[in-house]
Amino acid sequence: MISKNTIKLIKSLATKKYRTKEQLFLVEGDKMVAEVLQSDLKIKELIITSDFPHSIQNQSINIEKTTVADHKQLKQASLLNHPQNSMAICRIPNPRKFPNQLPNALSVYLDGIQDPGNLGTIIRICDWFGIEDVFCSPDTVDLYNPKVIQASMGSFNRINLLECEFSDIKTLAKKSDTQIFGTFMDGKNIYSEILPKNSLLVMGNEGNGIRKKVEALIDKRISIPNLSSNIEKAESLNVSVATAILCSEFKRPH
Amino acid sequence: MISKNTIKLIKSLATKKYRTKEQLFLVEGDKMVAEVLQSDLKIKELIITSDFPHSIQNQSINIEKTTVADHKQLKQASLLNHPQNSMAICRIPNPRKFPNQLPNALSVYLDGIQDPGNLGTIIRICDWFGIEDVFCSPDTVDLYNPKVIQASMGSFNRINLLECEFSDIKTLAKKSDTQIFGTFMDGKNIYSEILPKNSLLVMGNEGNGIRKKVEALIDKRISIPNLSSNIEKAESLNVSVATAILCSEFKRPH
Repeated sequence: MISKNTIKLIKSLATKKYRTKEQLFLVEGDKMVAEVLQSDLKIKELIITSDFPHSIQNQSINIEKTTVADHKQLKQASLLNHPQNSMAICRIPNPRKFPNQLPNALSVYLDGIQDPGNLGTIIRICDWFGIEDVFCSPDTVDLYNPKVIQASMGSFNRINLLECEFSDIKTLAKKSDTQIFGTFMDGKNIYSEILPKNSLLVMGNEGNGIRKKVEALIDKRISIPNLSSNIEKAESLNVSVATAILCSEFKRPH
Repeated sequence: MISKNTIKLIKSLATKKYRTKEQLFLVEGDKMVAEVLQSDLKIKELIITSDFPHSIQNQSINIEKTTVADHKQLKQASLLNHPQNSMAICRIPNPRKFPNQLPNALSVYLDGIQDPGNLGTIIRICDWFGIEDVFCSPDTVDLYNPKVIQASMGSFNRINLLECEFSDIKTLAKKSDTQIFGTFMDGKNIYSEILPKNSLLVMGNEGNGIRKKVEALIDKRISIPNLSSNIEKAESLNVSVATAILCSEFKRPH
């Protein structure tokens, strides 16, 4: 039985204000909850139906409370239209410290990504390509937005996402001898550029791209060439799709 | 003033049954409607507010009827939560004929893609990379689903999307000396394979991948390598993200 207070709490976690106040966030979907149970995340309350596998349920030692509910109750509490058999109210972990240097590898800076689906997808892409450090501007959509968590498919817990001003990253990049790449319509063809191992890739906002004050600090302007022969061409690629193509190009053997 | 019948018609176009019956589909969003007005598409009814630019409105000679409405009416008729200043009820064009051969270029076959956002995004990617022919299995989500149209960002009108059985494509591929590539977990590393100019790339369903009877007809099994060093790795990439990476890899100069 899910308490009225818990339902109220779950609904409140849709907004950043309450996630910040409570220092909690929500994970839904059996695969995602199973990943959380295998991680170090602390779980304030695990809510499951009797269909959720016992073997998975018992994998975490970090569960403060477990509630068994029926499907109807779970649906009532869920933020999803089609919930499965579980949801976890998790404690937001302490943010990691701002690093002293950039890794000798590709990292990513997100300048004002607004769509939660895009941020979640980008986190999943970075996880796939072994990119450990993802930085984002303070106005980027919140990592703990339930739609970001959902789209990241569990990758949110394997990536270091750190909010910071771009100027701090610029200082770090200089110290670490890291070149900063940004995508622009007039940038150089990504397929013919030299892409060093230790690079920082900047991706801009969905509508407005990279903001001016960040643009001024970028070392190399690159672009994915539009290969369409149509007179009316596709104007752009979705930012998560562009991130995928760029990460692949940086990470592939040359 | 939008008539009650038109509102009813618009709402019905959310489902394939009525799109097929009426041979109509809906385009929303000012940028998308502007593209439609510049195309050869026939428009049964163009609905705009007074904020929609006259210069754009007058670009099409294919408009059977124009209705000016206020924002409140447009919102009432719209299938979107946040409509802009226009929507177009368009006539579904005749499907093109099944070709006699595959082009001497990359084409794509979609085997049961179900998510409209994924199909729309894949169409946008194909448009970007100059892929003119996209084939899909009969159970792929309908091209004229409003969410597909929305995600394609206008590219739906620049790509030849043709529904067909895979066996017909296989016959065509043999005739055209085209190699068929499919993505599988155990496929060969995409970055070290030879990818001929005239290839057909098969992308599978979101949950189940490529179905067995299609798999049996594939020439080369490929995969995008997972470069994560985490013990718990990202399990997969979203199908539209994977399509983007693969198209980039096929189309880039080698």
